[in-house]
Amino acid sequence: MAHNTQVKADASAPPVTRQLAEFVAGHPSGGWTAVVEHEAQRTLLNWLGCAIGASRHAAIEAALAAMREFEPAGQATVVGRAERVDMGSASLLNGIASHTFDFDDTHLRTIIHPAGPVLSAALALAEHGGMSGRALLDALVIGVDVECRVGNAIYPDHYDRGWHITGSTGMLGAAAGCARLLRLDVARTTMALGIAASQPVGVREQFGSMTKSLHPGAAARVGLTAALMAKHGYTASERALEAPRGLLQTYSAKCDWREIHEGLGERFEIATNTYKPFACGIVIHPSIDGCIQLRDELRVSSDAIERVELVVHPLVLELTGKRMPRSGLEGKFSVYHACAAALLFGMAGEPQFSDACVADPSVVEVRDRVHARADTSIAEAAAEITLMLRDGRTMHKRIEHAIGSLQRPMSDVALREKFHRLVDPILSADAATTLVGLCEELPRASSVRALTAAARPG
Amino acid sequence: MAHNTQVKADASAPPVTRQLAEFVAGHPSGGWTAVVEHEAQRTLLNWLGCAIGASRHAAIEAALAAMREFEPAGQATVVGRAERVDMGSASLLNGIASHTFDFDDTHLRTIIHPAGPVLSAALALAEHGGMSGRALLDALVIGVDVECRVGNAIYPDHYDRGWHITGSTGMLGAAAGCARLLRLDVARTTMALGIAASQPVGVREQFGSMTKSLHPGAAARVGLTAALMAKHGYTASERALEAPRGLLQTYSAKCDWREIHEGLGERFEIATNTYKPFACGIVIHPSIDGCIQLRDELRVSSDAIERVELVVHPLVLELTGKRMPRSGLEGKFSVYHACAAALLFGMAGEPQFSDACVADPSVVEVRDRVHARADTSIAEAAAEITLMLRDGRTMHKRIEHAIGSLQRPMSDVALREKFHRLVDPILSADAATTLVGLCEELPRASSVRALTAAARPG
Repeated sequence: MAHNTQVKADASAPPVTRQLAEFVAGHPSGGWTAVVEHEAQRTLLNWLGCAIGASRHAAIEAALAAMREFEPAGQATVVGRAERVDMGSASLLNGIASHTFDFDDTHLRTIIHPAGPVLSAALALAEHGGMSGRALLDALVIGVDVECRVGNAIYPDHYDRGWHITGSTGMLGAAAGCARLLRLDVARTTMALGIAASQPVGVREQFGSMTKSLHPGAAARVGLTAALMAKHGYTASERALEAPRGLLQTYSAKCDWREIHEGLGERFEIATNTYKPFACGIVIHPSIDGCIQLRDELRVSSDAIERVELVVHPLVLELTGKRMPRSGLEGKFSVYHACAAALLFGMAGEPQFSDACVADPSVVEVRDRVHARADTSIAEAAAEITLMLRDGRTMHKRIEHAIGSLQRPMSDVALREKFHRLVDPILSADAATTLVGLCEELPRASSVRALTAAARPG
Repeated sequence: MAHNTQVKADASAPPVTRQLAEFVAGHPSGGWTAVVEHEAQRTLLNWLGCAIGASRHAAIEAALAAMREFEPAGQATVVGRAERVDMGSASLLNGIASHTFDFDDTHLRTIIHPAGPVLSAALALAEHGGMSGRALLDALVIGVDVECRVGNAIYPDHYDRGWHITGSTGMLGAAAGCARLLRLDVARTTMALGIAASQPVGVREQFGSMTKSLHPGAAARVGLTAALMAKHGYTASERALEAPRGLLQTYSAKCDWREIHEGLGERFEIATNTYKPFACGIVIHPSIDGCIQLRDELRVSSDAIERVELVVHPLVLELTGKRMPRSGLEGKFSVYHACAAALLFGMAGEPQFSDACVADPSVVEVRDRVHARADTSIAEAAAEITLMLRDGRTMHKRIEHAIGSLQRPMSDVALREKFHRLVDPILSADAATTLVGLCEELPRASSVRALTAAARPG
């Protein structure tokens, strides 16, 4: 069998595994601006709302039943549920739940959902260890920085190949966050990142199935386990990320090492985190935003609409081009369904991505009138929508940046409203309010356990 | 950011995920020849010997200490040790142990070590469930077939990119074996393979560190967990392996689908499994074999050797070209050390790959006299060795196929001797003899628990 021993081989890469480890182990606690700190708290609140909101979903029921087969110890909380399981299972389950509604945070430059892997692992570890809120927030900022910097280095080639970048960089963020919580030294943190580097998670073909949500969950467990193995002396390559046969050169043709080490400890990727007003993939948010705005301007029944024409970046149709979604989950991968729901209901929350809504004949009727065209001249963040009305009028809307983007971020008030919409039905409005307060007080909390206790039903 | 949305996209692939699931769920128990069945038993014995032999290694101590942090239930055996842990941890730990000495079985066409992922997962599940020996052997044959067929489809491109193919196909073999043990139907077996398809393990940069051995262990746990999740209704893409953004097209440019489905259920890859007489990567076996033969012919002290010249395939130096190994583990990736040990001791077992042996001045002295040259005209399975003696004589040996290869397989007697060399020091010679008998009787054992009980210290 002929081998091509010359497949990629950049042996000159800087020692980024070690550089990241030095940052993870050595950066001062809270060593960032108030703006960064505030974004970390918004990230936490959004993650917690998404995970609690989805905690009774069939995906969680199935995954929890599987974890029960291992007879787990009651070390950590599955948020939104009464059950406690071992730290590894908790990180897996909370990671799945945080992504199940596709409503979680997004690092727009890479489409990574940063909190899922990092917080799902770090919270379980911090809860079991009775660690402080400050330590958890440090782990969050640092873990997100690691996964997003690696993402910046390899995006978009890595993603274009088929990797779901949230899970395939997330295990590094989770390992970093957990190594930080465990106070591992630079050498052991290097090993933790190295152990995680052999376990990337997620291919994009899974979009539309429960396994998409497994990706941040499995990445969380990989990272937590890697940090614990490193703590006890397990070894890995010191150049597991950057070596010619290391992770990054193995799974991406693009490896821009400067993205990893430049400004490390000075700029923080979590500062660019965003939160979704709509419960689906970020690429269809401009189309949804435009449809909701047109609906508000139209002020008549959707029966008046004869045809909807979308012009979007090709990636939108590659990722969300399902013409006839068969389930709520598949509906999240259908720009046609999302626009129909937005035009009919003026919303695109989790109820608009239920099985019932996707099968609703009135929605299907509007969906069939939506036509989309890919155009490389339009930005990924943008969309053009034209409504052709039965009375001969046309209405037009061009969105440059959707609500929830960096340019038009969700306000703190809107984020809290989103949190309540997700959490109130699961825990109660009072419990949700208590949780909001605990998140705000977290930097001063001596243990995260008050937070995790409040995340369980009373 | 410019996307290349045209990165590989073969949408015409046959439904191999489903085809494999039909085979896994539907193939008759023991539905193969006596030759295949015998090879399965040899595979089991070799795996068990390797795992028990390495069960006190520092890698296992570290990994076990990490697993203890999860307070695991006592569901399954860590072979060679008194501890019992949950099924997931047992599959991880036994998988690590089975590969730690690099002494495990090899599917030569792909360099996959097939038993590690499959048996480590299947034995833990079968022990906890009190399943029969027949069921375990069925899971072994079927699981190995799945991982090796996938390996055949993507090798060598996948490996050349940097993946450690044992872990990056092994999770599919483990999922298949466990789905079979759980008697999942075709639909759920398809899901089990799909869930595992998002979690490939292992990059080659880890060679020389403990994380190399983590690869089959982590793959085992991924496969076991995937099967249990599928049992409880967790979903994945039905085309997770073959779709344009599925696993195979994502991580390999070569995807020869026929290798997966042609002759499925008729030819069994385990029939081509091989076992190592030497405790290191298979690519240096021809060189070691030649050196041992020359030593036997030479019958004088190694002082008589002035220079050793090797001619090998380029892959040998890419994989095992460490000129100055610093540890026993690194010694396994040094054709120079391996040849020196073979010339000095006439053996290349685990003791010849200890830290002490690698640092031994007399070994280092001979090692420094070994010179290797890569030549693309020589086969991977071959090696040419020339000894230049101080008295002016030269001796020459060309090995076409090393002992342990398909062409010159280890005999059953030699395999049992290898088992005793590995197990006697850990359990006792009597216990090892008992285990050999239990392996031979396994097809008729109503439960695997007698075997796992005998694999623990008395």
